[in-house]
Amino acid sequence: MTKATIVAFDNFTDIDVFLAWDLLNRIRLIDKNFQVKIVGTKTVHRSVCGIELSTSGIIEECNKADLVFFASGPGTRMLIKDQEYLRRFQLNSGKQLICSMCSGALVLAALGLLEGLSATTYPTAVHELAGMGVKVEHDKHMVIQGNIATAAGCLAAVDLVKWAIERLYDSATADAVIASVLPVGQGQACIY
Amino acid sequence: MTKATIVAFDNFTDIDVFLAWDLLNRIRLIDKNFQVKIVGTKTVHRSVCGIELSTSGIIEECNKADLVFFASGPGTRMLIKDQEYLRRFQLNSGKQLICSMCSGALVLAALGLLEGLSATTYPTAVHELAGMGVKVEHDKHMVIQGNIATAAGCLAAVDLVKWAIERLYDSATADAVIASVLPVGQGQACIY
Repeated sequence: MTKATIVAFDNFTDIDVFLAWDLLNRIRLIDKNFQVKIVGTKTVHRSVCGIELSTSGIIEECNKADLVFFASGPGTRMLIKDQEYLRRFQLNSGKQLICSMCSGALVLAALGLLEGLSATTYPTAVHELAGMGVKVEHDKHMVIQGNIATAAGCLAAVDLVKWAIERLYDSATADAVIASVLPVGQGQACIY
Repeated sequence: MTKATIVAFDNFTDIDVFLAWDLLNRIRLIDKNFQVKIVGTKTVHRSVCGIELSTSGIIEECNKADLVFFASGPGTRMLIKDQEYLRRFQLNSGKQLICSMCSGALVLAALGLLEGLSATTYPTAVHELAGMGVKVEHDKHMVIQGNIATAAGCLAAVDLVKWAIERLYDSATADAVIASVLPVGQGQACIY
């Protein structure tokens, strides 16, 4: 079974959880053994816009996942100061795919995953990320460094998830998933 | 106060609620008096991918909303046969903006809102929509007919919401909201 976790938290940016959630779930139309879980520190996390999102797993599930996807949002600023929280992650970028949307890059940096690497993030987090010693690529919507990818600007999630699926499966699977959400007449192709 | 409702139901396509939800909430960064509610027939509706989504209003709130946004999903097939459900809507396309994503167009048709009009929908709903007497524009991601707009292919929601904001406010507001979710380096501009 191939497993993905989406890391949620209080005060997450709605679309940065739900776009990845929907796209990754579409893999299940091709591989029934693919599993995606939203994980967090509580049974329910509240989004910036007020959605009460139930989690389906705990943080430690990230440590055995094939793909770990860090969402973004104002809530990341609490997480990066919380050593107890950070210690729960035992990620291995040699074996796992690890990626972040927008300010989720701050969590990657706090976990020491971006040491010596460059990354991208949302404009509001650029100075913070640079202050953590990361070389920020201000104008790139996605920065890939081996098994680690950071993306910025909510809709960049499409390319980020596409990259992840290509790495977990192949480009045909990635193309099929993405084609299923493209606007009709703009490459849209249904997989169900 | 300007009001929008997003119509949810059991078995909704996750992204077709949440993308509009996130985008419409961004209007509140510009106009604090804008309100967006997710409405339904129950306090909680379950998505195709298993999200338990709490509603914040009832169907009848659509009847006084400035914008009514119909989400999509397999669940629409139940709704269009449910006369009691359909009777709860008293929409006025002369005064309200009414729009749908993908198979949400089936609900617009069932409500009689597409009589004599053309529309677009997801490939899996094309025959059904045509069978309801609607001229389906197979290859268009958005079809605008006065105050009614139908869009198809999940990411077409970006253009659909942009159209709605332009109509509710102006193009500057619409541009600012959309720019805030574009990929960095591809027109992205932060409004918060």
